[in-house]
Amino acid sequence: MSSPIEFYFDFSSPYAYLATAGIDALAAKHHRNVTWKPMMLGAALKLTGNRPLVDVPMKGEYTRHDVPRTAKHLNLPFVWPEKFPYAAIAPSRAFYWLATRDETKAKLFARAVFTAYFGHGRDMTTPEAVADVASHLGVPPAETLAALQDQAVKDRLKAETDAAIAKGVFGSPFFFVDGESFWGQDRLPDVARQLGGA
Amino acid sequence: MSSPIEFYFDFSSPYAYLATAGIDALAAKHHRNVTWKPMMLGAALKLTGNRPLVDVPMKGEYTRHDVPRTAKHLNLPFVWPEKFPYAAIAPSRAFYWLATRDETKAKLFARAVFTAYFGHGRDMTTPEAVADVASHLGVPPAETLAALQDQAVKDRLKAETDAAIAKGVFGSPFFFVDGESFWGQDRLPDVARQLGGA
Repeated sequence: MSSPIEFYFDFSSPYAYLATAGIDALAAKHHRNVTWKPMMLGAALKLTGNRPLVDVPMKGEYTRHDVPRTAKHLNLPFVWPEKFPYAAIAPSRAFYWLATRDETKAKLFARAVFTAYFGHGRDMTTPEAVADVASHLGVPPAETLAALQDQAVKDRLKAETDAAIAKGVFGSPFFFVDGESFWGQDRLPDVARQLGGA
Repeated sequence: MSSPIEFYFDFSSPYAYLATAGIDALAAKHHRNVTWKPMMLGAALKLTGNRPLVDVPMKGEYTRHDVPRTAKHLNLPFVWPEKFPYAAIAPSRAFYWLATRDETKAKLFARAVFTAYFGHGRDMTTPEAVADVASHLGVPPAETLAALQDQAVKDRLKAETDAAIAKGVFGSPFFFVDGESFWGQDRLPDVARQLGGA
């Protein structure tokens, strides 16, 4: 199996949620794995001077229409969460903590966080909400809550975010396939072409 | 035949150039026409607070790599023009002047301007360069040069740009299909789906 696809995202990004509908199946079709890499996109936005999509005049209105219609096309449940966007520190830290123990479980956790937040509008800002999601995957809430306070876990997310920015990640979702980078959920056809060796 | 697709663009937009490779053929497949609508995107960028893509840190480097690789995939000639981006006032004015006389010729002119600029790196800022492109379509240069000074022609571009912004156009290319809007060359698959009545 060739090197994995890297899938960088912010848990607060609706287009990343839309990308979760297709990325693993697309990779599997081409006998690849996908490494999921949550990051704090706000740190990149500070560097580029960009703002969250929905805060930009005109672009914001477009996004508010575009995301639900695309979710519908992809058969993904979608609601605009009351608190949007949010600083997804808790789920991002929990992801990396889980990933060091069990990468498959970490991905299931990430999908569950996305579905809870964008599919059902559940607040994902608090450690308790994140621990609750993890508990449905068999992780005792007390363990998740402890991990979220662990300095090594905090440092890991910081290091992953810094590394993503150093690699050129400025938006979410952002993919790397064999050294080629693709920004945006609408670039999955290009990811597919790259996987096909075109 | 149903109502035409509206294709808004700035002549200085490389992604608009990439979109010209496919939009008319896609429309024809669905028995639609395409109305080409050049505009001065700078006026919209002022409202959104956005900057030209290549001026944005990180996003700029991505774009400089992404445009040539996509052009290659689409079999379009591409070079980065020395003067990029540019204020495409002259070709935009000439387009609307031509379109009132002959819409087909205006589209051929638009394609020729894009190819001269992004395909061969020719400077398209001057009235003389624009008149030269039009001359290859049988338009006497003196007529084009006179039109570019015509206040009614100047007013037309201003009115078209204002109307585009009022409609919500904040980027280039930007498409409207039966009331649905799609931003970006990478959204042509969505335009196709909309045309298919999905």
